[in-house]
Amino acid sequence: MSDNKPYYEHHVFFCMNVREGENCRQSCGKAGAEVAQKHAKKRIKALGLNEPGKVRINQAGCLERCEEGPVVVIYPQGTWYTYVDTSDIDDIIDTHILGGEIVERLKI
Amino acid sequence: MSDNKPYYEHHVFFCMNVREGENCRQSCGKAGAEVAQKHAKKRIKALGLNEPGKVRINQAGCLERCEEGPVVVIYPQGTWYTYVDTSDIDDIIDTHILGGEIVERLKI
Repeated sequence: MSDNKPYYEHHVFFCMNVREGENCRQSCGKAGAEVAQKHAKKRIKALGLNEPGKVRINQAGCLERCEEGPVVVIYPQGTWYTYVDTSDIDDIIDTHILGGEIVERLKI
Repeated sequence: MSDNKPYYEHHVFFCMNVREGENCRQSCGKAGAEVAQKHAKKRIKALGLNEPGKVRINQAGCLERCEEGPVVVIYPQGTWYTYVDTSDIDDIIDTHILGGEIVERLKI
């Protein structure tokens, strides 16, 4: 049960969840998700890839992999990554989205 | 380039985008997305399916299919649906998630 031609070739969801308060579980929104998502969106737009058939960068609520975060998932491939900074996001864009290869060092 | 076993068998993203102001384009957040997403989340939890390997219901930013909305996408199948009310959401849960069949009347 899958469609042959996806609406987006790469549909990217950044977990943006923010947990507040002392002693709360870690959350992607407190670990650079906003900067990372904006960076990805800007770069995909600059590459001219932000359209149907190509790439969509989205914000999402809690993806419930908090302890492995910050996390981003790329569908329909179903590949999950963590990242530290925007250079990791660039690697995911260059290697996975443009190159079609998994970034093994960031894969979770 | 795809993983054999997805982290979630069905990862469901509701577009929650709200556009404000006169003459603005229609938006899912103004067409019942919040009620629909909460309904889906509650029902999946009641079914005991809200865990890794099963189902995740998420909120997402604008999925950029505004004129076809409100929209929801289920990955990794990459199936897009519109809906009118919570009975349509129940149909998507019963038929697609539980039954493994496409809901043709709601598919976009």
